[in-house]
Amino acid sequence: MISNTTDSAVTVLGLGPMGRALAGALLDAGLPTTVWNRTAGKDRELTERGAAGAPSPEAAVAASGLTLICVVDYGAVDAVLRRDAVADALKGRAVVNLTADTPDRARDTAAWAAEHGIGYLDGAIMTPATTIGTPGAAFIHSGPEELYRRHEPVLESLGGTHTYLGAEIGRAAAYDLALLDIFWTTMAGYAHALAVARAEGIGARQLAPFAAGISAFLPSIFERFAQDVDDKTFSGEINPITSAASSIAHIVHASEAHGIDAGVMRVVQDLARRVIEQGHGADGFMRITELLNAR
Amino acid sequence: MISNTTDSAVTVLGLGPMGRALAGALLDAGLPTTVWNRTAGKDRELTERGAAGAPSPEAAVAASGLTLICVVDYGAVDAVLRRDAVADALKGRAVVNLTADTPDRARDTAAWAAEHGIGYLDGAIMTPATTIGTPGAAFIHSGPEELYRRHEPVLESLGGTHTYLGAEIGRAAAYDLALLDIFWTTMAGYAHALAVARAEGIGARQLAPFAAGISAFLPSIFERFAQDVDDKTFSGEINPITSAASSIAHIVHASEAHGIDAGVMRVVQDLARRVIEQGHGADGFMRITELLNAR
Ligand SMILES: NC(=O)c1ccc[n+]([C@@H]2O[C@H](COP(=O)([O-])OP(=O)(O)OC[C@H]3O[C@@H](n4cnc5c(N)ncnc54)[C@H](OP(=O)(O)O)[C@@H]3O)[C@@H](O)[C@H]2O)c1
Ligand SMILES: NC(=O)c1ccc[n+]([C@@H]2O[C@H](COP(=O)([O-])OP(=O)(O)OC[C@H]3O[C@@H](n4cnc5c(N)ncnc54)[C@H](OP(=O)(O)O)[C@@H]3O)[C@@H](O)[C@H]2O)c1
Repeated sequence: MISNTTDSAVTVLGLGPMGRALAGALLDAGLPTTVWNRTAGKDRELTERGAAGAPSPEAAVAASGLTLICVVDYGAVDAVLRRDAVADALKGRAVVNLTADTPDRARDTAAWAAEHGIGYLDGAIMTPATTIGTPGAAFIHSGPEELYRRHEPVLESLGGTHTYLGAEIGRAAAYDLALLDIFWTTMAGYAHALAVARAEGIGARQLAPFAAGISAFLPSIFERFAQDVDDKTFSGEINPITSAASSIAHIVHASEAHGIDAGVMRVVQDLARRVIEQGHGADGFMRITELLNAR
Repeated sequence: MISNTTDSAVTVLGLGPMGRALAGALLDAGLPTTVWNRTAGKDRELTERGAAGAPSPEAAVAASGLTLICVVDYGAVDAVLRRDAVADALKGRAVVNLTADTPDRARDTAAWAAEHGIGYLDGAIMTPATTIGTPGAAFIHSGPEELYRRHEPVLESLGGTHTYLGAEIGRAAAYDLALLDIFWTTMAGYAHALAVARAEGIGARQLAPFAAGISAFLPSIFERFAQDVDDKTFSGEINPITSAASSIAHIVHASEAHGIDAGVMRVVQDLARRVIEQGHGADGFMRITELLNAR
């Protein structure tokens, strides 16, 4: 347990759904919590629960040894942090940036923090805001290990699993980006599938349990396909890309016959077609990574 | 249990990875099994295990009351079944078509079967060939209920779960198509994520466990998003589409900075942008289904 001293005081900048969930978990853990948000009023519920509402970001960061920032992107992070008053107040303190953005933005922010004598860790949250404070939450972190270990107890009070990925500051953002890529592409596929299903008279609630059935065997497929990609084996013995291309063609056809844009699948179809044209039709679908990584 | 009479004899047409798995499960269940494949030689392992290898599709279907066909697509189904000798041999018998294709092709094949006095069920297999004969397999079926119930015991000998979706013959194909849409879109997202990760120095095996972590909470997200789509609620309270659009922009940016084509994400980005431009930025991502179903 963390004792209730100012050593464990934490500031949260940004009170969107995620920032509010983070601050709520800190309050649940009994940590002195200061909050601030650009637009006023979003701290009401938190201050009612005992959080201190700060009038400015500089006042907010001055209240704690550790600041968590979680806003929409690093443009917003810059707008909040990269002002003299805030940089001065942060000197000698630490920031964990839980905002999602690209690895190069994380590296750039780390360089700015170093220049200003601010300890800097870059993290990412890989689960929905509703998981924060529960065992279902998942965080990844990168940056100086000593700094990470020092703040690990506070971070763990946010709940869930915390994985330290190493000192390279861009690493958490790179993992996060790759995982968001999978997530949003999957959601786009789901939305498209529901649109096609609706056109065929099938309700979304009817399809959902079968979609859930697919997710049950995704982990083993992800594992096997990862081996293919790392080892460049691309075994198509179980399912050659020609077979995938045939399914993809059916999806494009049925979708467009219903007047439903099949733009995503057309891009995938084109990648599969190029692999087959290169003479790799007997290989597995994951050979498309070789086209993507061609540069 | 099914007794070992000719009543329970089954023919399998098509011995790709899936056809071989189906025939293997029938043999394991002790059913008299006849097999045929366009290209000779693929039946060797099966005949060694006791299957009868037929010299032609007409000879193959004449050996059993029930024929399963599982080839690449309905073009291949037509090439095998729609010949006078085969249609004559099938008269009064039943076919379960486990080939994946579009609902309209299923309806067309059912019309052809009806014309020729052939019982016809259309099914789809929603799990990999490796699951056949195990509890992990999942099949869906549609067509005349009486015919389905008659052949259900033989179908169940293929292992796994069998769901009867109703009399509308195109229904199984429509579900299958929607589920393949989700599956292949997800795999395209995974391939792209692995390509981006590789460019960032992250191996596929390193990312795979985190990708598996995403799949753990997909069922509840599928369920919630299905409610959004059926009820047209599209609540963005937890995650507004503007936040998704920000993640998507990061993915496109980081991908293209590494020279990796972001074609799939660019299509998704365009859909999200159109939703936001229509003034629905506070709604959830699934509102893109309204654009897709606009016709
Ligand atoms: N929500 C989730 O389930 C979830 C899951 C995993 C990761 N994340 C990540 O967590 C971060 C925050 O997400 P979120 O869900 O809380 O909502 P969000 O919509 O991504 O971000 C909203 C927050 O950003 C602030 N903001 C935007 N532009 C700003 C600017 N120029 N200056 C100062 N503040 C600005 C907003 O302040 P105002 O109130 O003043 O607009 C608000 O506090 C994002 O990077 C997101 O990708 C979220
Ligand atoms: N494999 C899986 O894990 C899996 C999972 C779910 C569903 N499915 C579905 O199951 C079906 C079969 O898949 P599969 O994996 O076995 O392999 P496939 O590559 O999709 O199909 C190969 C089979 O189709 C036959 N074929 C192709 N064109 C033909 C033609 N014009 N005339 C006669 N036969 C022809 C091949 O015969 P030759 O040997 O002569 O080329 C071979 O028997 C597909 O619809 C697939 O989508 C497969």
